[in-house]
Formats: sequence, structure tokens, C-alpha cells
Amino acid sequence: MKSFRKELWFDIPSRRAFINITPEIKQCLKESSIKEGLVLVNAMHITASVFINDDESGLHQDYERWLEKLAPHEPVSGYMHNRTGEDNGDAHLKRQVMGREVVVAVTDGDLDFGPWEQIFYGEFDGRRKKRILVKIIGE
Amino acid sequence: MKSFRKELWFDIPSRRAFINITPEIKQCLKESSIKEGLVLVNAMHITASVFINDDESGLHQDYERWLEKLAPHEPVSGYMHNRTGEDNGDAHLKRQVMGREVVVAVTDGDLDFGPWEQIFYGEFDGRRKKRILVKIIGE
Amino acid sequence: MKSFRKELWFDIPSRRAFINITPEIKQCLKESSIKEGLVLVNAMHITASVFINDDESGLHQDYERWLEKLAPHEPVSGYMHNRTGEDNGDAHLKRQVMGREVVVAVTDGDLDFGPWEQIFYGEFDGRRKKRILVKIIGE
Repeated sequence: MKSFRKELWFDIPSRRAFINITPEIKQCLKESSIKEGLVLVNAMHITASVFINDDESGLHQDYERWLEKLAPHEPVSGYMHNRTGEDNGDAHLKRQVMGREVVVAVTDGDLDFGPWEQIFYGEFDGRRKKRILVKIIGE
Repeated sequence: MKSFRKELWFDIPSRRAFINITPEIKQCLKESSIKEGLVLVNAMHITASVFINDDESGLHQDYERWLEKLAPHEPVSGYMHNRTGEDNGDAHLKRQVMGREVVVAVTDGDLDFGPWEQIFYGEFDGRRKKRILVKIIGE
Repeated sequence: MKSFRKELWFDIPSRRAFINITPEIKQCLKESSIKEGLVLVNAMHITASVFINDDESGLHQDYERWLEKLAPHEPVSGYMHNRTGEDNGDAHLKRQVMGREVVVAVTDGDLDFGPWEQIFYGEFDGRRKKRILVKIIGE
């Protein structure tokens, strides 16, 4: 069994954003030279997500609006967590809806994806350096 | 390390449905002859889910009602995504709540499940052919 | 490829709770002597979660309040599932928001975690014995 590990860093200038990281994950797969196995991609921070969906800007606006409705940023005082001095209570909730990680099959050296699947980094508390982990195991 | 891959196809006649696919996944496991490892089961489409819960019809009605409340199908014009000509904006949101994939332990050649765990395909934009991926790795 | 399997049991005295299980998972990793691979940690019951977030009590109160808003326990008669005689319809919904499982990378014999990541058992229908599964594969 082979294994491969790499961190990818982000410094998103806004509080929230969705970034397509599929090309970077494909590049990791190439570097790993693993042909059959599984790739795990996870946020290493607890106010960010990695998820799979469509690369369509209207949909991303829908996600943004919907997550704000489910777990609004304001009022900041509405979250017990923010009594610690943080203002990111909402980001910890949004991340649970969108998920921490994805596991993707590796087949013939490529991501084994349906027609529209793309991997995204979901940032809910940006404006600082944060990272994700790519771990691939297989042969 | 051995690996096994299979696609399972669905053509659900309604917009939304929950289908128990546990027998099909067990059959894949048998075909793979893998005894120890992990099985990944994921929707290959971005308006569908694979998740684990109870095979109880009342609960499935509760999920249907709850997801419609969290992300209603109507009004279709309420989603930016639908400006692309689609009417499935809600389905992309529902799928995030229910999840894209499950990873299940394989022990002694069987799904290593608790007493009530069953694997479901969750369709949120049916009436056309769609598929899931089963990938098993192990020995 | 090596594999390791262990069940961890809980008997939570309240209906709902969040328990940090990171030390127990690290102990499993040590017992497995697996240095590179993946660890799967999943609830074996369908009214409980395993998830990764921050070990901060204010945040846990935020989760509790938020999940009660998204899927309230009362009125019990509001869930079709409860016509089976159960009163845990809400717990099946809460578990979908928080997730069934986590997959964590194993690197150099340790959980490959960001600075604040901790693994939690999320109980939504306690006051009885329930368990989670830890499965590790790798080398």
C-alpha cells in the first residue's frame, strides 16, 4: 500500500467563499502515482468545509443565502461561542451543514467522478491563512 | 491491496424518493471477495445523496417534509441556480443536508453495521437515469 | 495492509450530549500500530453522530439550541416516525445535520489533525447503551 500526504493553503480575502480545488486534487493524485484507492480531502480548520457539488455561480449564491438563513452571522451576540472573543459562531454551524471532508474513489489514476462533480473549499471565516489536507492511499 | 468498482443505476419515476440499496451493496461486497477494508458508496450526481439511517416509512415522510421546509422546491424562481434553465436548485441544497457519500467498514466480508443501519439512495431530482459508485478497497 | 476494529460503548444519562472521544481514538491508533492509512469512526446507531469540531462548551450550547430549532423534539406528535411508539423522530433528523461518520488521515502513527480538530460523539437519544465503531486500515 502506498500513501501520499499534502497540505494546501488558502488565504481568502473575504469572510466567506467557495473555491474549486479539483485541479489541485488531480495534481496531488498525479504526484502520488496511486492508480487504485481512496483520496480523503478535509478542512484542517473547524470553520471551513470541503464538499462536492456543481461549479455554478448562481448555485454558490444560493448556498451563501441559504446558510445565512440557517445560521446567520448577525447578531454576533446570538452565539454563546462568541463570548470567547470570537465572532465566528455561525461559521462552526455552517460548516456542519456543508461537511468537513469528502472521500473520493481513485480509479485508473484519476478521480472517479460523475459528470458534474467538482471539489470545493468552503470558507466561512476567512481573511487569514488556513489549510486543507489531502491524503491518498492505494496502489 | 485489492480494489473493486461498480456503478449502480437508477431511474426514479418521481422527483424525490428514498431507496434502500443495502442488498445491492452487500452483493458488491460478495463479488469483490474483500474481507477487511472500507467501502465507499457515493452519488455520482450532485442532486442526490447516499446516507445511512432507518428503513421506516414514517421517518422517510418526516425527512421529505423537513427537507422541503429547509429548502423548498417552490418557488422555483427563488433560486439563482434556476436562472440557468434548471428547476432543481432546491435539490442541490437538500443533498448537502443528507450528504453525498458513506464510508462503511468491511469486517469478515460483511458490512460492519449496527442493528438498524441501512444504506439509502436519496433522489431529489429524479425522472431520469442517474447512478451511484461503489468502491471497495482492502484484502 | 493491516486492519484494526474496536467498538466503544456509551451510556449517556441525558437525552442529548456531546462527548470528546479523541483520546479513545488515539488509543485505538496506538493499539493498531498502523502508521499510515485512514481511520473511520462512525456511530453504529441512527440517532447519534460522530463529528469533528471545537471542544468549546459555548459552541456545544449553540449546537444544542440550533439543532432544536432545525428539528425540535416537541411536539413528539409532529413526527410520523413517532407513530411507531418512538419519541426520537427529531434525533434521526439532527443526526443528518451533524453526520454519521468521520474519516481521518493517519500519518506517522497519529491522527493528522489541524490545530483545533477534536472528534465528538453526538448523542441525540441517550439514556441507554449505544456504541460507535473504529476501523483503521493501512500499514
